Amino acid sequence: MTSANHFEVLGRDGGARTGSLTTPHGVVRTPAFMPVGTAGAMKGVHWREVREAGADIVLGNTYHLMLRPGAERIAALGGLQKFTGWQGPMLTDSGGFQVMSLSELRKVSETSVTFRSHIDGAKVELSPERSIEVQRLLGSDIAMQMDECVRLPAERADIERAMQLSLRWGERSKRAFETAPDGYMLFGIVQGGDVAGLRQESARGLVDTGFHGYAIGGLAVGEPQSVMLAMIEEVAPILPEERPRYLMGVGTPEDILEAVARGIDMFDCVMPTRNGRHGMAFTRFGQINLRNARHADDPRPLDDESPWPSTRGYARAYLHHLVKSGETLGAMLLSEINIAYYQRLMHDIRDAISKGTFASFRERTRAEWAQGDIPPR
Amino acid sequence: MTSANHFEVLGRDGGARTGSLTTPHGVVRTPAFMPVGTAGAMKGVHWREVREAGADIVLGNTYHLMLRPGAERIAALGGLQKFTGWQGPMLTDSGGFQVMSLSELRKVSETSVTFRSHIDGAKVELSPERSIEVQRLLGSDIAMQMDECVRLPAERADIERAMQLSLRWGERSKRAFETAPDGYMLFGIVQGGDVAGLRQESARGLVDTGFHGYAIGGLAVGEPQSVMLAMIEEVAPILPEERPRYLMGVGTPEDILEAVARGIDMFDCVMPTRNGRHGMAFTRFGQINLRNARHADDPRPLDDESPWPSTRGYARAYLHHLVKSGETLGAMLLSEINIAYYQRLMHDIRDAISKGTFASFRERTRAEWAQGDIPPR
Repeated sequence: MTSANHFEVLGRDGGARTGSLTTPHGVVRTPAFMPVGTAGAMKGVHWREVREAGADIVLGNTYHLMLRPGAERIAALGGLQKFTGWQGPMLTDSGGFQVMSLSELRKVSETSVTFRSHIDGAKVELSPERSIEVQRLLGSDIAMQMDECVRLPAERADIERAMQLSLRWGERSKRAFETAPDGYMLFGIVQGGDVAGLRQESARGLVDTGFHGYAIGGLAVGEPQSVMLAMIEEVAPILPEERPRYLMGVGTPEDILEAVARGIDMFDCVMPTRNGRHGMAFTRFGQINLRNARHADDPRPLDDESPWPSTRGYARAYLHHLVKSGETLGAMLLSEINIAYYQRLMHDIRDAISKGTFASFRERTRAEWAQGDIPPR
Repeated sequence: MTSANHFEVLGRDGGARTGSLTTPHGVVRTPAFMPVGTAGAMKGVHWREVREAGADIVLGNTYHLMLRPGAERIAALGGLQKFTGWQGPMLTDSGGFQVMSLSELRKVSETSVTFRSHIDGAKVELSPERSIEVQRLLGSDIAMQMDECVRLPAERADIERAMQLSLRWGERSKRAFETAPDGYMLFGIVQGGDVAGLRQESARGLVDTGFHGYAIGGLAVGEPQSVMLAMIEEVAPILPEERPRYLMGVGTPEDILEAVARGIDMFDCVMPTRNGRHGMAFTRFGQINLRNARHADDPRPLDDESPWPSTRGYARAYLHHLVKSGETLGAMLLSEINIAYYQRLMHDIRDAISKGTFASFRERTRAEWAQGDIPPR
């Protein structure tokens, strides 16, 4: 692992930045939103649609992939890109977060986490070194260090213990990543819960270790948006200007807009596909619940000014019918529509930052969301 | 309703024919296979993919659509094509078959069938006249007469009673269709179970009444293929040469090839999408079960000579993983791959008939299926 920087800031507007991150599988325009393809697939959306929607990079979950089909198998098949057919950049998480949220009988020690697979109950051990090994086998362009994420609210002592452990795991992850070829990247993860001093300490420790980029973890886990934004404000000034910053697991369009204003470059979230499966559409008018009877006889599309064909091409009445009938096509269309909305939002954000009009874009976009949906017909 | 003929036979090769059927929403090349979009949606497949796969026409189920979202609602929204976004020809069944198979507490009288909706338990009455009214409201290019289909094996007396009732319902359907605009079509349905004499009587009765086309119903319901083919051979000579012939609910690629050889022009079946949801792929090598462990490490596509991108573009190992993981994308890809296989088969059948090489095409295709899948790697 070299410490070479693959990120370039191309423009600044207030606290917001736009840039480009060069990975072995292509260039990522930032601010970037990464749709989540948990187990090597985007739920309900073809890869070709993810690409057409404008996504440069997607996220895969190490926890899922190591359990099934297995990292060694994917490596033998040529890596995640060849295996899935997604030919662009991929970031993988470390697996740690999902060990905590999905597996049973987990036990955290200084060395590693042991747990039982949620698929077949097999006992599995995941250490920072094994997590890096798995991510290297998967062939991900950006690997994440293993960390421990504490559920909020929590005692300060617990938050501090997990943050310190994550710092030590960060160092071990970096050592394990030494042999990775040039161009592949490793990101450290800032922890520290909702305690400003711990967040700062975590950020300083990671910068001392030195990573290709820095993520902020353990947020958007139920705390108010104001707490999340306050923590970003504590951490951002400590992180090196020239390195990419990634806010993990975030979030709503509102969260993204505010985090970009505070200097965040990368995001990921299951929200576009998960909410799509539950009948929700993200639009210029805010979130729209297609399950609502107000749409049953409405021939109008979700947004007749959208550049995405499905957003302006299908009647609300049809989407309502598909959702009410439990037709897969409803989840497919809404997931695709939502991914396209998020990607369009990122495109417009990048554009506004480049032109120096981000402040007015942010106000206008928030006003449109606040105005709500068009009146029912 | 005029008795104008919208079908043209363009070529003959043995008993097989190729032709074109002109509907208000476009031309259907025959022999044609109609994918089934039950409730206004193809399960797991976008309409754009159905079109790209080469389908000229799709089938919608009157029973499902009249219960939800309702025929009057679809009419107010501009008809099925406008509602769903499928801009091509549509055939609808009468609803009768699914009343028998899906609803509860059904009661058949001379006048109509009364039943309880499988969705909300509401009591609904469906008569031949109401079935036509519903199909007209849906705006289908080809409506089917209401009939009664008896489950085989059955007593001859029961088969005969249902066949005679279907003949009377055919006459009533035709009267109800009188006001339909030019270009829209009504097909009669031959019944008579597995009794040659009853099949002939049914066909003669329908021809006396006069329809735009003739369907053969009540087959592919569990009887041996030989019985199905024998019934086609009884009926086909009675049906007018110049009118289209539609074998309902059929079937496997093998069934289609044999029925085409006996003069059938149209088919429909849920098999491509249903089997796709169960991990099965239709290919040149026959049906392939992707759930089978032999595919877990196989980097090869289903068929590297297929013209369909997903058939030659995804590793068997990936499809296996998606199926085993229950990922929606697995069902989506296999459903699309299967629809494309069926459409390619129909394309090749039409091509062979045009060139007068249908007999050798049929032998070669059956030999490929019989040879089975490529050896595991």
